Amino acid sequence: MKAEIITIGNELLETGHVDLNSTFLGEHLTVLGASVTRATTVPDAPKLISEALKSAIDKAEVVVVTGGLGPTGDDRTKQAIARALGRKLVLDEDVLAAVRAHFEKRGLPMPESNLSQAMMPEGARAIGNRLGTAPGLLLKQGETLVFILPGVPAEMRAMFESYVGPYLEGRGLRRLTEARLVRTTGLPESVLSERIGRIAKRLARVEVAYLPKATGVDIRITGRGETLRKARVAAESAQERLANELGDCVYARGDESLEQVVGYLLAMKGKTVSVAESCTGGRLGWTLTRMPGSSDYFVGGIIAYSNDLKKRLLGVKAGILKQHGAVSAETARAMAGGVRTRTRSDYGIGVTGIAGPGGGSEERPVGLVYIAVSGPRGEKAREFRLAGGRDSVRKQACQSALDMLRRVLLNLPADPVTSQE
Amino acid sequence: MKAEIITIGNELLETGHVDLNSTFLGEHLTVLGASVTRATTVPDAPKLISEALKSAIDKAEVVVVTGGLGPTGDDRTKQAIARALGRKLVLDEDVLAAVRAHFEKRGLPMPESNLSQAMMPEGARAIGNRLGTAPGLLLKQGETLVFILPGVPAEMRAMFESYVGPYLEGRGLRRLTEARLVRTTGLPESVLSERIGRIAKRLARVEVAYLPKATGVDIRITGRGETLRKARVAAESAQERLANELGDCVYARGDESLEQVVGYLLAMKGKTVSVAESCTGGRLGWTLTRMPGSSDYFVGGIIAYSNDLKKRLLGVKAGILKQHGAVSAETARAMAGGVRTRTRSDYGIGVTGIAGPGGGSEERPVGLVYIAVSGPRGEKAREFRLAGGRDSVRKQACQSALDMLRRVLLNLPADPVTSQE
Repeated sequence: MKAEIITIGNELLETGHVDLNSTFLGEHLTVLGASVTRATTVPDAPKLISEALKSAIDKAEVVVVTGGLGPTGDDRTKQAIARALGRKLVLDEDVLAAVRAHFEKRGLPMPESNLSQAMMPEGARAIGNRLGTAPGLLLKQGETLVFILPGVPAEMRAMFESYVGPYLEGRGLRRLTEARLVRTTGLPESVLSERIGRIAKRLARVEVAYLPKATGVDIRITGRGETLRKARVAAESAQERLANELGDCVYARGDESLEQVVGYLLAMKGKTVSVAESCTGGRLGWTLTRMPGSSDYFVGGIIAYSNDLKKRLLGVKAGILKQHGAVSAETARAMAGGVRTRTRSDYGIGVTGIAGPGGGSEERPVGLVYIAVSGPRGEKAREFRLAGGRDSVRKQACQSALDMLRRVLLNLPADPVTSQE
Repeated sequence: MKAEIITIGNELLETGHVDLNSTFLGEHLTVLGASVTRATTVPDAPKLISEALKSAIDKAEVVVVTGGLGPTGDDRTKQAIARALGRKLVLDEDVLAAVRAHFEKRGLPMPESNLSQAMMPEGARAIGNRLGTAPGLLLKQGETLVFILPGVPAEMRAMFESYVGPYLEGRGLRRLTEARLVRTTGLPESVLSERIGRIAKRLARVEVAYLPKATGVDIRITGRGETLRKARVAAESAQERLANELGDCVYARGDESLEQVVGYLLAMKGKTVSVAESCTGGRLGWTLTRMPGSSDYFVGGIIAYSNDLKKRLLGVKAGILKQHGAVSAETARAMAGGVRTRTRSDYGIGVTGIAGPGGGSEERPVGLVYIAVSGPRGEKAREFRLAGGRDSVRKQACQSALDMLRRVLLNLPADPVTSQE
């Protein structure tokens, strides 16, 4: 069953209003088993609304429209729809009674402008709105079902969940897809796709998508089948297969974040961690404490932005800073060891680098970051050369630091294996 | 000039990925003076991409397409475009050299799959991408300009700002609106709108919008006029008027962040700051170091998540913790004073609170946060009761801490004035 979404509103196209309704509807229609082939956003202009609607009805069996049902003058959805479908607007007495009741309940007179909310295209069925005054509409045009819902996200969601979803299930729409995730970090999309691209193509009943972010690549696996159970089996066996193929760059088979995974590992082993941050300025500590309950394994840290503090608070020797520089593997090691000793944690992480945009040179460019992990069985340090702007470099440095700790906790090699030999 | 936007990606229609690119492009094209008549989202399906592109070229003078330029198999934008426009894909040697250089700089071999990034539809001009490997494209089809940009938001934005915008201005697109911002923190939208609502309604040629966020309310003023100069004058005089009316809850008349404002003030006065963080876990340090050059005024800090570290690294006396508790004004003061002394900074900020979801009680609920600023002229502490989830509480705590420091640096009263009496 093909579905299209139309969202209406000047604010969505002009002033930075994010269109969360399309996102919600796309996800929920997909889960219900529809194939969402297009989402269109148009301004509050009758001609453009009408064109979008005709085009959607032409191509899809289900069209969900949101926005433009309020009483104010910029809301022209119903007129545009009536015109597009060659129907008259007629007063619906039941809807009028419901709108009146909404105001009476609040002890307010009904403003004249709300009368228009009771005008419905001929043949339309009203969909009740328990959160606001604007009712929704359901119309059948040829073989296409058209649902028209208010643009206020909470109202739209409630009406979708209490009416549109059940209605479509009643029409025999069945969920026949199941999604699974494999999350990776440390290797670029191109390396991952070389590793699993061929296998992914040969997997039956499964679609594989790469979702690259600065901090890693998520791989989304969508299984399909004649039944939901078959879809799930397809998704899960593909997930297993691909995750195994990808090896130790996989940190989660699910939607856990890397800081969650590291947190689980630390908690499971009853170990604690502390951080010594230079270029990340506190971000690593903040990331490690995003999870509730992180005080079980995170004790604290030292943000040593200046060299003076690296010496005084972390005990980095002046000789190391002088000989190797503040941005060096040696300094990262000394920071990691220093914070571990001072906070009496089991593990210490040290991060030092050049986040930019200034401070780089030919030899030591922006994006050069050294990270060290100090633990009961010694220290490991790695050099990273990260691309992107200041924010991105700092974000990637944190992710790399967490991944180094994960590797230490799991006894994996410090670097992800980049070839399959 | 009519403009259309096309965003491409299964994730936008199926899995709850919010389409921020449409929002960004709509807003920026509008500001440039274009009339955005439609935004369309389609999955990574060549036929649907091709249909959307043809329809957009048919109706608009400018079409901006994002997504589907990566090297992996699910990226079919360029093939679909070439086919829709009846053009061949040819190898662009300059682009190939740029992609190669991107990998060489990082000491990596270029994967075979990245070759496809150098294939361009005949007659297309490449748009450089300094943040990634996928170049953008500019094509002319009849009277329509088609810009094709990567879907990664940071790359897309950088390319729009450094190329698409200037190019369209060069083509004579004229802006007749001018936006100005007034940024506030510490007071809710309802208080602000009571204060300026009536005045805002009476302002000529100006629209005023409230943009509430957890960390404060931005007020966006859009001036209109027959010329850009008139629009600017309208926006600026309204900005002046409203900012004066709002008083000291205004931290910026422009798009500066609060950390930028605090950074300017510290740099101007030649003063330094350090942080002692408990519930914020490093976020305050990270926020203060988001600005390049922050090492001029930020020296570092101590993340004291455990009580033990509050005592050992910050010198908070056991008696204070015992008598008042870790979440108290007294502990915040001791943390602020402690980090100031230990880092030898001019100002120290201490933050302690209950970020939740656990750890709260009737008397000391989740969201209770104490913040103290210690400086050459003594200490100030305030209690906050913040609403929202863990992430939101921590974000608001940082914003409140920065605002307390701003108020100290500007000799303002510790609390924003809540009434106009």
